[in-house]
Amino acid sequence: MVEICEVGPRDGLQNEKVILSVDERVEMITKLINSGIQFIEAVSFINPKIIPQMAFAERVMEQVPRRKGVRYAGLVLSSGGMERALASGLDEINVALAASNTFNFKNARRSTEDSLAEMTPIIYKAKGKKHNVSGVIGTAFGCPFEGSISFSYIRFIINTFLENGVDAITLADTTGMANPKQVFQIVEQFKEHFPRVKLGLHFHNTRGLGIANVYAGYQAGVRRFDASIGGIGGCPFAPLSVGNVCTEDIVHMFEQMGETTGIDLDQLIQIAKWTEGKVEHPLDGYVMKAGPVERTIS
Amino acid sequence: MVEICEVGPRDGLQNEKVILSVDERVEMITKLINSGIQFIEAVSFINPKIIPQMAFAERVMEQVPRRKGVRYAGLVLSSGGMERALASGLDEINVALAASNTFNFKNARRSTEDSLAEMTPIIYKAKGKKHNVSGVIGTAFGCPFEGSISFSYIRFIINTFLENGVDAITLADTTGMANPKQVFQIVEQFKEHFPRVKLGLHFHNTRGLGIANVYAGYQAGVRRFDASIGGIGGCPFAPLSVGNVCTEDIVHMFEQMGETTGIDLDQLIQIAKWTEGKVEHPLDGYVMKAGPVERTIS
Repeated sequence: MVEICEVGPRDGLQNEKVILSVDERVEMITKLINSGIQFIEAVSFINPKIIPQMAFAERVMEQVPRRKGVRYAGLVLSSGGMERALASGLDEINVALAASNTFNFKNARRSTEDSLAEMTPIIYKAKGKKHNVSGVIGTAFGCPFEGSISFSYIRFIINTFLENGVDAITLADTTGMANPKQVFQIVEQFKEHFPRVKLGLHFHNTRGLGIANVYAGYQAGVRRFDASIGGIGGCPFAPLSVGNVCTEDIVHMFEQMGETTGIDLDQLIQIAKWTEGKVEHPLDGYVMKAGPVERTIS
Repeated sequence: MVEICEVGPRDGLQNEKVILSVDERVEMITKLINSGIQFIEAVSFINPKIIPQMAFAERVMEQVPRRKGVRYAGLVLSSGGMERALASGLDEINVALAASNTFNFKNARRSTEDSLAEMTPIIYKAKGKKHNVSGVIGTAFGCPFEGSISFSYIRFIINTFLENGVDAITLADTTGMANPKQVFQIVEQFKEHFPRVKLGLHFHNTRGLGIANVYAGYQAGVRRFDASIGGIGGCPFAPLSVGNVCTEDIVHMFEQMGETTGIDLDQLIQIAKWTEGKVEHPLDGYVMKAGPVERTIS
Protein backbone atom coordinates (compact mmCIF):
# COMPACT_ATOMS: atom_id res chain seq x y z
CA MET A 1 0.00 0.00 0.00
CA VAL A 2 1.32 3.37 -1.05
CA GLU A 3 0.00 6.57 0.53
CA ILE A 4 -0.46 9.53 -1.78
CA CYS A 5 -0.55 12.93 -0.13
CA GLU A 6 -2.44 15.12 -2.57
CA VAL A 7 -0.85 18.58 -2.52
CA GLY A 8 -2.65 20.06 -5.54
CA PRO A 9 -4.94 22.32 -3.47
CA ARG A 10 -1.85 23.79 -1.77
CA ASP A 11 1.48 23.46 -3.64
CA GLY A 12 -0.37 23.15 -6.94
CA LEU A 13 -2.81 26.04 -6.73
CA GLN A 14 -0.38 28.42 -5.03
CA ASN A 15 1.75 28.33 -8.18
CA GLU A 16 -1.14 28.86 -10.61
CA LYS A 17 -1.95 32.28 -12.02
CA VAL A 18 -5.70 31.76 -11.84
CA ILE A 19 -7.00 32.18 -8.29
CA LEU A 20 -9.71 29.68 -7.43
CA SER A 21 -12.58 30.75 -5.17
CA VAL A 22 -13.16 29.14 -1.77
CA ASP A 23 -16.08 27.20 -3.27
CA GLU A 24 -13.95 25.94 -6.14
CA ARG A 25 -11.19 24.87 -3.76
CA VAL A 26 -13.72 23.03 -1.59
CA GLU A 27 -15.19 21.40 -4.70
CA MET A 28 -11.73 20.28 -5.80
CA ILE A 29 -10.92 18.85 -2.38
CA THR A 30 -14.29 17.10 -2.19
CA LYS A 31 -13.78 15.47 -5.58
CA LEU A 32 -10.31 14.32 -4.53
CA ILE A 33 -11.64 12.84 -1.28
CA ASN A 34 -14.43 11.11 -3.23
CA SER A 35 -11.82 9.47 -5.48
CA GLY A 36 -10.33 7.73 -2.45
CA ILE A 37 -7.56 10.13 -1.47
CA GLN A 38 -7.27 10.07 2.32
CA PHE A 39 -4.43 12.48 2.96
CA ILE A 40 -4.56 15.96 1.51
CA GLU A 41 -2.61 19.16 2.00
CA ALA A 42 -5.64 21.41 1.72
CA VAL A 43 -4.43 24.85 2.75
CA SER A 44 -1.50 27.05 3.67
CA PHE A 45 -1.55 29.59 6.47
CA ILE A 46 0.47 32.31 4.89
CA ASN A 47 0.00 36.03 4.38
CA PRO A 48 -2.61 36.37 1.59
CA LYS A 49 -0.84 39.51 0.39
CA ILE A 50 2.14 37.31 -0.51
CA ILE A 51 0.19 34.31 -1.82
CA PRO A 52 -3.38 35.38 -2.65
CA GLN A 53 -4.13 31.91 -4.03
CA MET A 54 -4.08 30.58 -0.45
CA ALA A 55 -6.31 33.25 1.15
CA PHE A 56 -9.32 32.22 3.27
CA ALA A 57 -7.79 28.93 4.45
CA GLU A 58 -10.18 28.91 7.43
CA ARG A 59 -13.21 29.16 5.16
CA VAL A 60 -11.92 26.27 3.05
CA MET A 61 -11.41 24.15 6.15
CA GLU A 62 -14.91 24.98 7.43
CA GLN A 63 -16.48 23.53 4.30
CA VAL A 64 -14.42 20.47 3.41
CA PRO A 65 -16.14 17.11 3.95
CA ARG A 66 -15.22 15.25 7.10
CA ARG A 67 -14.92 11.53 6.47
CA LYS A 68 -13.58 8.67 8.53
CA GLY A 69 -9.95 8.00 7.65
CA VAL A 70 -9.48 11.31 5.81
CA ARG A 71 -6.75 13.55 7.19
CA TYR A 72 -6.32 17.21 6.27
CA ALA A 73 -2.90 18.80 6.45
CA GLY A 74 -1.95 22.44 6.14
CA LEU A 75 1.35 24.22 5.65
CA VAL A 76 2.62 26.51 8.37
CA LEU A 77 5.70 28.72 8.09
CA SER A 78 5.32 31.05 11.09
CA SER A 79 3.97 31.34 14.60
CA GLY A 80 1.00 33.43 13.40
CA GLY A 81 0.24 30.76 10.83
CA MET A 82 0.26 28.08 13.53
CA GLU A 83 -2.33 29.99 15.58
CA ARG A 84 -4.61 30.07 12.53
CA ALA A 85 -3.87 26.41 11.73
CA LEU A 86 -4.70 25.22 15.24
CA ALA A 87 -8.02 27.04 15.17
CA SER A 88 -9.05 25.63 11.83
CA GLY A 89 -9.53 21.95 12.61
CA LEU A 90 -6.61 20.51 10.69
CA ASP A 91 -5.53 16.94 11.40
CA GLU A 92 -1.89 17.41 10.54
CA ILE A 93 0.43 20.38 10.46
CA ASN A 94 3.30 20.59 8.02
CA VAL A 95 6.12 22.88 9.07
CA ALA A 96 8.59 23.68 6.34
CA LEU A 97 12.00 25.21 5.80
CA ALA A 98 14.75 24.90 3.20
CA ALA A 99 17.97 23.04 3.97
CA SER A 100 19.75 25.59 1.78
CA ASN A 101 20.46 28.72 3.75
CA THR A 102 20.42 30.92 0.63
CA PHE A 103 17.12 29.48 -0.53
CA ASN A 104 15.60 29.84 2.94
CA PHE A 105 16.71 33.48 3.06
CA LYS A 106 15.07 34.19 -0.29
CA ASN A 107 11.92 32.32 0.70
CA ALA A 108 11.49 33.16 4.39
CA ARG A 109 13.90 36.11 4.89
CA ARG A 110 15.87 34.31 7.59
CA SER A 111 18.54 31.63 7.87
CA THR A 112 17.68 27.94 7.99
CA GLU A 113 18.76 27.80 11.64
CA ASP A 114 16.64 30.83 12.51
CA SER A 115 13.65 29.16 10.85
CA LEU A 116 14.38 25.99 12.78
CA ALA A 117 14.60 27.93 16.06
CA GLU A 118 11.37 29.77 15.30
CA MET A 119 9.63 26.48 14.65
CA THR A 120 10.50 24.93 17.99
CA PRO A 121 7.73 26.66 20.01
CA ILE A 122 5.35 26.28 17.06
CA ILE A 123 5.85 22.52 16.99
CA TYR A 124 5.50 22.32 20.80
CA LYS A 125 2.23 24.16 20.60
CA ALA A 126 0.84 21.85 17.92
CA LYS A 127 2.01 18.77 19.78
CA GLY A 128 0.42 20.16 22.94
CA LYS A 129 -2.90 20.21 21.08
CA LYS A 130 -2.32 16.57 20.01
CA HIS A 131 -1.79 17.40 16.34
CA ASN A 132 0.47 15.33 14.16
CA VAL A 133 3.32 17.42 12.81
CA SER A 134 5.43 16.70 9.74
CA GLY A 135 8.75 18.45 9.19
CA VAL A 136 9.19 19.30 5.53
CA ILE A 137 12.76 19.93 4.40
CA GLY A 138 12.93 21.80 1.11
CA THR A 139 15.90 21.77 -1.33
CA ALA A 140 16.90 18.45 0.29
CA PHE A 141 18.12 17.13 -3.07
CA GLY A 142 19.91 20.28 -4.18
CA CYS A 143 19.51 24.04 -4.33
CA PRO A 144 19.65 26.22 -7.44
CA PHE A 145 21.87 28.69 -5.56
CA GLU A 146 24.03 26.45 -3.37
CA GLY A 147 24.16 23.24 -5.41
CA SER A 148 24.21 20.00 -3.46
CA ILE A 149 23.24 19.93 0.21
CA SER A 150 25.19 17.65 2.56
CA PHE A 151 23.21 14.87 4.16
CA SER A 152 24.90 15.63 7.47
CA TYR A 153 23.19 19.03 7.48
CA ILE A 154 19.86 17.42 6.60
CA ARG A 155 20.47 15.01 9.49
CA PHE A 156 20.99 17.97 11.81
CA ILE A 157 17.65 19.46 10.74
CA ILE A 158 15.87 16.12 11.10
CA ASN A 159 17.36 15.58 14.56
CA THR A 160 16.21 19.03 15.67
CA PHE A 161 12.73 18.39 14.27
CA LEU A 162 12.56 15.03 16.05
CA GLU A 163 13.77 16.49 19.36
CA ASN A 164 10.91 18.95 19.12
CA GLY A 165 8.41 16.13 18.66
CA VAL A 166 7.82 16.04 14.90
CA ASP A 167 6.08 12.79 13.86
CA ALA A 168 7.23 12.42 10.27
CA ILE A 169 9.69 13.91 7.81
CA THR A 170 9.19 14.91 4.19
CA LEU A 171 12.23 15.45 2.01
CA ALA A 172 11.29 17.86 -0.77
CA ASP A 173 12.98 18.44 -4.11
CA THR A 174 11.72 22.01 -4.26
CA THR A 175 13.15 22.96 -7.65
CA GLY A 176 13.31 19.59 -9.38
CA MET A 177 17.02 18.83 -9.05
CA ALA A 178 16.90 15.23 -7.80
CA ASN A 179 17.88 12.20 -9.83
CA PRO A 180 16.81 8.61 -9.10
CA LYS A 181 20.25 7.33 -8.09
CA GLN A 182 20.58 10.17 -5.56
CA VAL A 183 17.06 9.59 -4.25
CA PHE A 184 17.82 5.94 -3.60
CA GLN A 185 21.06 6.84 -1.82
CA ILE A 186 19.51 9.57 0.34
CA VAL A 187 16.63 7.31 1.38
CA GLU A 188 19.13 4.58 2.28
CA GLN A 189 21.01 7.09 4.45
CA PHE A 190 17.77 8.25 6.02
CA LYS A 191 16.78 4.67 6.87
CA GLU A 192 20.20 3.99 8.35
CA HIS A 193 20.02 7.00 10.69
CA PHE A 194 16.27 7.14 11.32
CA PRO A 195 14.98 3.58 10.91
CA ARG A 196 11.75 4.25 12.79
CA VAL A 197 10.85 7.65 11.38
CA LYS A 198 8.07 7.88 8.78
CA LEU A 199 9.44 9.40 5.56
CA GLY A 200 7.56 11.07 2.73
CA LEU A 201 9.03 12.31 -0.55
CA HIS A 202 7.99 15.39 -2.49
CA PHE A 203 9.18 15.75 -6.08
CA HIS A 204 8.72 18.28 -8.82
CA ASN A 205 8.92 17.25 -12.46
CA THR A 206 10.96 20.26 -13.54
CA ARG A 207 13.48 18.20 -15.50
CA GLY A 208 11.26 15.22 -16.30
CA LEU A 209 12.63 13.01 -13.51
CA GLY A 210 9.72 13.28 -11.06
CA ILE A 211 8.25 9.83 -11.66
CA ALA A 212 11.66 8.13 -11.93
CA ASN A 213 12.44 9.69 -8.54
CA VAL A 214 9.18 8.37 -7.07
CA TYR A 215 10.06 4.92 -8.40
CA ALA A 216 13.57 5.11 -6.91
CA GLY A 217 12.15 6.18 -3.55
CA TYR A 218 9.64 3.34 -3.70
CA GLN A 219 12.43 0.87 -4.41
CA ALA A 220 14.31 2.19 -1.40
CA GLY A 221 11.24 1.46 0.73
CA VAL A 222 9.32 4.76 0.88
CA ARG A 223 5.55 4.37 0.85
CA ARG A 224 4.40 8.01 1.11
CA PHE A 225 4.58 10.43 -1.81
CA ASP A 226 3.30 13.94 -2.37
CA ALA A 227 1.69 14.55 -5.76
CA SER A 228 -0.68 17.05 -7.35
CA ILE A 229 -3.65 16.31 -9.54
CA GLY A 230 -2.81 16.85 -13.22
CA GLY A 231 0.69 17.90 -12.13
CA ILE A 232 -0.63 21.42 -11.47
CA GLY A 233 1.72 24.04 -10.13
CA GLY A 234 3.81 24.40 -13.22
CA CYS A 235 3.26 25.29 -16.82
CA PRO A 236 4.86 23.07 -19.46
CA PHE A 237 5.89 26.11 -21.48
CA ALA A 238 7.21 28.28 -18.70
CA PRO A 239 11.00 28.67 -18.66
CA LEU A 240 11.12 26.95 -15.28
CA SER A 241 8.30 24.48 -15.08
CA VAL A 242 7.80 23.61 -11.43
CA GLY A 243 4.81 21.26 -11.35
CA ASN A 244 4.61 18.54 -8.72
CA VAL A 245 4.66 14.96 -9.88
CA CYS A 246 1.23 14.19 -11.24
CA THR A 247 -1.10 12.27 -8.92
CA GLU A 248 -2.92 10.22 -11.53
CA ASP A 249 0.32 9.37 -13.36
CA ILE A 250 1.93 7.90 -10.25
CA VAL A 251 -1.30 6.19 -9.12
CA HIS A 252 -1.37 4.63 -12.61
CA MET A 253 2.26 3.53 -12.29
CA PHE A 254 1.69 1.96 -8.89
CA GLU A 255 -1.47 0.19 -10.15
CA GLN A 256 0.50 -1.19 -13.10
CA MET A 257 3.20 -2.42 -10.73
CA GLY A 258 0.59 -4.24 -8.63
CA GLU A 259 0.80 -1.80 -5.73
CA THR A 260 -2.45 -0.51 -4.26
CA THR A 261 -3.22 3.12 -3.44
CA GLY A 262 -6.94 2.87 -2.61
CA ILE A 263 -7.64 5.61 -5.14
CA ASP A 264 -9.96 5.40 -8.17
CA LEU A 265 -7.87 6.24 -11.23
CA ASP A 266 -10.80 7.03 -13.52
CA GLN A 267 -12.11 9.59 -11.05
CA LEU A 268 -8.64 11.13 -10.77
CA ILE A 269 -8.51 11.56 -14.54
CA GLN A 270 -11.89 13.31 -14.48
CA ILE A 271 -10.69 15.60 -11.68
CA ALA A 272 -7.50 16.39 -13.62
CA LYS A 273 -9.63 17.45 -16.61
CA TRP A 274 -11.91 19.51 -14.37
CA THR A 275 -8.84 21.17 -12.83
CA GLU A 276 -7.40 21.88 -16.27
CA GLY A 277 -10.56 23.82 -17.05
CA LYS A 278 -10.25 25.79 -13.82
CA VAL A 279 -6.58 26.78 -14.12
CA GLU A 280 -7.09 27.61 -17.81
CA HIS A 281 -3.99 26.05 -19.33
CA PRO A 282 -3.04 22.55 -20.48
CA LEU A 283 -1.77 20.39 -17.66
CA ASP A 284 1.37 18.24 -17.60
CA GLY A 285 -0.31 14.90 -16.83
CA TYR A 286 0.12 12.09 -19.35
CA VAL A 287 -2.50 9.54 -18.31
CA MET A 288 -5.21 12.22 -18.50
CA LYS A 289 -4.38 12.46 -22.22
CA ALA A 290 -3.45 8.90 -23.21
CA GLY A 291 -5.70 7.01 -20.80
CA PRO A 292 -4.57 4.19 -18.53
CA VAL A 293 -2.92 1.10 -20.02
CA GLU A 294 -5.92 -1.13 -19.21
CA ARG A 295 -8.43 1.08 -20.91
CA THR A 296 -6.50 0.99 -24.22
CA ILE A 297 -7.46 -2.63 -24.83
CA SER A 298 -10.22 -2.64 -27.41
CA MET B 1 29.13 4.38 -20.38
CA VAL B 2 25.59 4.44 -21.74
CA GLU B 3 24.95 4.31 -25.48
CA ILE B 4 22.12 6.46 -26.77
CA CYS B 5 20.64 5.46 -30.11
CA GLU B 6 19.08 8.64 -31.45
CA VAL B 7 15.87 7.70 -33.27
CA GLY B 8 14.47 11.21 -33.74
CA PRO B 9 15.23 11.34 -37.50
CA ARG B 10 13.29 8.08 -37.94
CA ASP B 11 10.76 7.20 -35.22
CA GLY B 12 10.44 10.86 -34.29
CA LEU B 13 9.96 12.49 -37.67
CA GLN B 14 7.79 9.71 -39.09
CA ASN B 15 5.15 10.59 -36.49
CA GLU B 16 5.29 14.34 -37.08
CA LYS B 17 2.77 16.11 -39.32
CA VAL B 18 5.33 18.47 -40.79
CA ILE B 19 7.47 16.74 -43.43
CA LEU B 20 11.10 17.83 -43.29
CA SER B 21 13.06 18.14 -46.52
CA VAL B 22 16.07 15.95 -47.25
CA ASP B 23 18.33 18.92 -46.49
CA GLU B 24 16.61 19.55 -43.17
CA ARG B 25 16.89 15.89 -42.20
CA VAL B 26 20.60 15.91 -43.09
CA GLU B 27 21.06 19.11 -41.09
CA MET B 28 19.33 17.54 -38.10
CA ILE B 29 21.45 14.39 -38.30
CA THR B 30 24.65 16.45 -38.72
CA LYS B 31 23.84 18.53 -35.64
CA LEU B 32 23.16 15.36 -33.65
CA ILE B 33 26.44 13.77 -34.74
CA ASN B 34 28.26 17.01 -33.87
CA SER B 35 26.83 16.84 -30.34
CA GLY B 36 28.59 13.53 -29.82
CA ILE B 37 25.87 11.05 -30.72
CA GLN B 38 27.55 8.06 -32.37
CA PHE B 39 24.61 5.79 -33.11
CA ILE B 40 21.65 7.10 -35.03
CA GLU B 41 18.62 5.59 -36.70
CA ALA B 42 18.68 7.94 -39.65
CA VAL B 43 16.17 6.54 -42.13
CA SER B 44 13.46 3.98 -42.78
CA PHE B 45 13.11 2.07 -46.04
CA ILE B 46 9.39 2.02 -46.31
CA ASN B 47 6.90 2.88 -49.03
CA PRO B 48 6.83 6.71 -49.16
CA LYS B 49 3.14 6.55 -50.08
CA ILE B 50 2.50 5.12 -46.61
CA ILE B 51 5.03 7.24 -44.69
CA PRO B 52 5.92 10.30 -46.78
CA GLN B 53 8.03 11.67 -43.91
CA MET B 54 10.60 8.92 -44.62
CA ALA B 55 10.83 9.38 -48.42
CA PHE B 56 14.22 9.80 -50.12
CA ALA B 57 16.13 7.74 -47.53
CA GLU B 58 18.91 7.14 -50.10
CA ARG B 59 19.40 10.88 -50.61
CA VAL B 60 19.60 11.43 -46.86
CA MET B 61 22.22 8.69 -46.55
CA GLU B 62 24.25 10.15 -49.43
CA GLN B 63 24.62 13.45 -47.62
CA VAL B 64 25.09 12.58 -43.95
CA PRO B 65 28.58 13.17 -42.56
CA ARG B 66 30.82 10.14 -42.26
CA ARG B 67 32.86 10.23 -39.08
CA LYS B 68 35.01 7.67 -37.33
CA GLY B 69 32.98 5.84 -34.71
CA VAL B 70 29.61 7.03 -36.01
CA ARG B 71 27.20 4.28 -37.03
CA TYR B 72 24.05 4.84 -39.08
CA ALA B 73 21.14 2.48 -38.70
CA GLY B 74 18.00 2.24 -40.81
CA LEU B 75 14.72 0.47 -40.30
CA VAL B 76 13.72 -2.30 -42.71
CA LEU B 77 10.37 -4.06 -42.73
CA SER B 78 10.43 -5.89 -46.08
CA SER B 79 12.68 -7.55 -48.62
CA GLY B 80 12.39 -4.59 -51.01
CA GLY B 81 13.37 -2.30 -48.14
CA MET B 82 16.45 -4.42 -47.45
CA GLU B 83 17.62 -4.10 -51.08
CA ARG B 84 17.40 -0.32 -50.75
CA ALA B 85 19.07 -0.39 -47.33
CA LEU B 86 22.00 -2.48 -48.52
CA ALA B 87 22.62 -0.11 -51.42
CA SER B 88 22.56 2.99 -49.24
CA GLY B 89 25.69 2.56 -47.15
CA LEU B 90 24.11 1.94 -43.77
CA ASP B 91 26.23 0.51 -40.98
CA GLU B 92 23.45 -1.29 -39.19
CA ILE B 93 20.09 -2.66 -40.23
CA ASN B 94 17.16 -2.78 -37.84
CA VAL B 95 14.53 -5.34 -38.70
CA ALA B 96 11.29 -4.95 -36.80
CA LEU B 97 8.09 -6.77 -36.05
CA ALA B 98 5.50 -6.72 -33.27
CA ALA B 99 5.29 -9.54 -30.74
CA SER B 100 1.52 -9.01 -30.73
CA ASN B 101 -0.06 -10.78 -33.65
CA THR B 102 -2.98 -8.36 -33.80
CA PHE B 103 -0.70 -5.35 -33.73
CA ASN B 104 1.56 -6.87 -36.39
CA PHE B 105 -1.46 -7.52 -38.61
CA LYS B 106 -2.58 -3.91 -38.29
CA ASN B 107 0.92 -2.60 -38.90
CA ALA B 108 2.35 -5.01 -41.49
CA ARG B 109 -0.75 -6.85 -42.77
CA ARG B 110 0.61 -10.26 -41.81
CA SER B 111 1.02 -12.39 -38.69
CA THR B 112 4.06 -12.09 -36.44
CA GLU B 113 5.29 -15.50 -37.57
CA ASP B 114 4.84 -14.58 -41.23
CA SER B 115 6.89 -11.41 -40.60
CA LEU B 116 9.53 -13.49 -38.85
CA ALA B 117 9.65 -15.97 -41.76
CA GLU B 118 9.86 -13.16 -44.29
CA MET B 119 12.77 -11.64 -42.38
CA THR B 120 14.91 -14.77 -42.43
CA PRO B 121 16.27 -14.32 -45.99
CA ILE B 122 16.46 -10.56 -45.42
CA ILE B 123 18.69 -11.03 -42.38
CA TYR B 124 20.82 -13.62 -44.22
CA LYS B 125 21.34 -11.16 -47.04
CA ALA B 126 22.39 -8.34 -44.70
CA LYS B 127 24.71 -10.66 -42.78
CA GLY B 128 26.18 -11.86 -46.08
CA LYS B 129 27.12 -8.25 -46.80
CA LYS B 130 28.72 -8.00 -43.33
CA HIS B 131 26.14 -5.63 -41.91
CA ASN B 132 25.22 -5.64 -38.27
CA VAL B 133 21.56 -6.47 -37.80
CA SER B 134 19.40 -5.67 -34.80
CA GLY B 135 16.10 -7.40 -34.25
CA VAL B 136 13.52 -4.96 -32.90
CA ILE B 137 10.54 -6.50 -31.12
CA GLY B 138 7.62 -4.11 -30.84
CA THR B 139 4.81 -4.31 -28.26
CA ALA B 140 7.24 -6.34 -26.11
CA PHE B 141 5.85 -4.73 -22.95
CA GLY B 142 2.19 -4.97 -23.87
CA CYS B 143 -0.20 -4.42 -26.76
CA PRO B 144 -3.21 -2.10 -26.81
CA PHE B 145 -5.24 -4.88 -28.48
CA GLU B 146 -3.92 -8.06 -26.85
CA GLY B 147 -2.80 -6.80 -23.47
CA SER B 148 0.28 -8.42 -21.98
CA ILE B 149 2.62 -10.47 -24.15
CA SER B 150 4.16 -13.62 -22.67
CA PHE B 151 7.91 -13.60 -22.32
CA SER B 152 8.01 -17.15 -23.68
CA TYR B 153 6.70 -15.84 -27.00
CA ILE B 154 9.26 -13.02 -26.97
CA ARG B 155 11.91 -15.69 -26.30
CA PHE B 156 10.73 -17.61 -29.35
CA ILE B 157 11.10 -14.50 -31.52
CA ILE B 158 14.54 -13.72 -30.08
CA ASN B 159 15.69 -17.31 -30.63
CA THR B 160 14.56 -17.19 -34.26
CA PHE B 161 16.29 -13.84 -34.75
CA LEU B 162 19.49 -15.20 -33.21
CA GLU B 163 19.41 -18.39 -35.30
CA ASN B 164 19.25 -16.16 -38.34
CA GLY B 165 22.34 -14.27 -37.25
CA VAL B 166 20.94 -11.12 -35.65
CA ASP B 167 23.63 -9.33 -33.59
CA ALA B 168 21.51 -7.47 -31.06
CA ILE B 169 17.96 -7.24 -29.79
CA THR B 170 15.86 -4.18 -29.02
CA LEU B 171 12.74 -4.59 -26.93
CA ALA B 172 10.32 -1.80 -27.81
CA ASP B 173 7.39 -0.44 -25.85
CA THR B 174 5.62 0.68 -28.99
CA THR B 175 2.57 2.26 -27.40
CA GLY B 176 3.94 3.27 -24.00
CA MET B 177 2.51 0.49 -21.83
CA ALA B 178 5.60 -0.52 -19.84
CA ASN B 179 6.12 0.16 -16.17
CA PRO B 180 9.48 0.18 -14.38
CA LYS B 181 8.87 -2.95 -12.29
CA GLN B 182 7.98 -4.90 -15.43
CA VAL B 183 10.98 -3.51 -17.31
CA PHE B 184 13.31 -4.67 -14.56
CA GLN B 185 11.72 -8.13 -14.55
CA ILE B 186 11.80 -8.56 -18.34
CA VAL B 187 15.43 -7.48 -18.54
CA GLU B 188 16.28 -9.96 -15.78
CA GLN B 189 14.55 -12.71 -17.77
CA PHE B 190 16.35 -11.64 -20.93
CA LYS B 191 19.73 -11.77 -19.17
CA GLU B 192 18.95 -15.20 -17.75
CA HIS B 193 18.14 -16.64 -21.17
CA PHE B 194 20.46 -14.58 -23.37
CA PRO B 195 23.38 -13.58 -21.16
CA ARG B 196 25.68 -12.76 -24.07
CA VAL B 197 23.22 -10.94 -26.34
CA LYS B 198 23.41 -7.15 -26.60
CA LEU B 199 20.09 -5.62 -25.50
CA GLY B 200 18.68 -2.20 -26.27
CA LEU B 201 15.46 -0.70 -24.90
CA HIS B 202 13.04 1.57 -26.73
CA PHE B 203 10.43 3.44 -24.70
CA HIS B 204 7.68 5.90 -25.47
CA ASN B 205 6.54 8.39 -22.89
CA THR B 206 2.83 7.95 -23.61
CA ARG B 207 1.88 7.59 -19.94
CA GLY B 208 4.76 9.54 -18.43
CA LEU B 209 6.80 6.46 -17.48
CA GLY B 210 9.42 6.62 -20.23
CA ILE B 211 12.30 7.89 -18.11
CA ALA B 212 11.38 5.72 -15.10
CA ASN B 213 11.50 2.75 -17.50
CA VAL B 214 14.93 3.83 -18.79
CA TYR B 215 16.12 4.04 -15.19
CA ALA B 216 14.71 0.59 -14.38
CA GLY B 217 16.39 -0.88 -17.47
CA TYR B 218 19.66 0.79 -16.49
CA GLN B 219 19.41 -0.69 -13.02
CA ALA B 220 18.89 -4.13 -14.53
CA GLY B 221 22.12 -3.65 -16.47
CA VAL B 222 21.05 -2.32 -19.89
CA ARG B 223 23.44 0.24 -21.38
CA ARG B 224 21.76 0.99 -24.74
CA PHE B 225 18.63 3.14 -25.03
CA ASP B 226 16.73 4.58 -27.96
CA ALA B 227 15.62 8.19 -27.54
CA SER B 228 14.52 11.06 -29.73
CA ILE B 229 15.67 14.66 -29.54
CA GLY B 230 13.08 16.84 -27.78
CA GLY B 231 10.91 13.72 -27.42
CA ILE B 232 9.60 14.28 -30.96
CA GLY B 233 7.15 11.84 -32.39
CA GLY B 234 4.25 12.75 -30.19
CA CYS B 235 2.26 15.81 -29.38
CA PRO B 236 1.60 16.59 -25.70
CA PHE B 237 -1.96 17.52 -26.51
CA ALA B 238 -2.88 14.67 -28.80
CA PRO B 239 -5.26 12.13 -27.27
CA LEU B 240 -2.57 9.45 -27.60
CA SER B 241 0.78 11.09 -27.18
CA VAL B 242 3.36 8.70 -28.55
CA GLY B 243 6.69 10.54 -28.33
CA ASN B 244 9.87 8.61 -27.66
CA VAL B 245 11.71 9.24 -24.44
CA CYS B 246 13.51 12.52 -24.85
CA THR B 247 17.24 12.28 -25.66
CA GLU B 248 18.43 15.34 -23.75
CA ASP B 249 16.28 14.47 -20.72
CA ILE B 250 17.85 11.02 -20.36
CA VAL B 251 21.36 12.29 -21.17
CA HIS B 252 20.80 14.83 -18.37
CA MET B 253 19.63 12.09 -16.00
CA PHE B 254 22.64 9.91 -16.74
CA GLU B 255 25.01 12.86 -16.34
CA GLN B 256 23.41 13.65 -12.98
CA MET B 257 23.85 10.03 -11.92
CA GLY B 258 27.55 10.17 -12.83
CA GLU B 259 27.17 7.99 -15.92
CA THR B 260 28.84 9.16 -19.13
CA THR B 261 27.21 9.25 -22.55
CA GLY B 262 29.88 11.13 -24.52
CA ILE B 263 27.22 13.60 -25.67
CA ASP B 264 27.25 17.38 -25.15
CA LEU B 265 24.05 18.27 -23.32
CA ASP B 266 24.10 21.97 -24.19
CA GLN B 267 24.28 21.14 -27.89
CA LEU B 268 21.41 18.68 -27.50
CA ILE B 269 19.26 21.40 -25.95
CA GLN B 270 20.02 23.71 -28.87
CA ILE B 271 19.12 20.93 -31.33
CA ALA B 272 15.87 20.27 -29.48
CA LYS B 273 14.94 23.96 -29.81
CA TRP B 274 15.90 23.94 -33.50
CA THR B 275 13.78 20.80 -34.01
CA GLU B 276 10.84 22.41 -32.20
CA GLY B 277 10.96 25.21 -34.75
CA LYS B 278 10.99 22.71 -37.61
CA VAL B 279 8.10 20.51 -36.44
CA GLU B 280 6.07 23.60 -35.53
CA HIS B 281 4.66 22.56 -32.17
CA PRO B 282 5.93 22.63 -28.59
CA LEU B 283 8.00 19.56 -27.75
CA ASP B 284 7.71 17.31 -24.72
CA GLY B 285 11.28 17.72 -23.42
CA TYR B 286 11.73 19.14 -19.92
CA VAL B 287 15.43 20.02 -19.79
CA MET B 288 15.06 22.13 -22.96
CA LYS B 289 12.65 24.32 -20.95
CA ALA B 290 14.08 24.24 -17.42
CA GLY B 291 17.77 23.90 -18.25
CA PRO B 292 20.10 21.33 -16.72
CA VAL B 293 20.53 21.19 -12.95
CA GLU B 294 24.12 22.50 -13.10
CA ARG B 295 23.24 25.57 -15.08
CA THR B 296 20.65 26.70 -12.52
CA ILE B 297 23.36 27.64 -10.03
CA SER B 298 23.69 31.41 -10.10
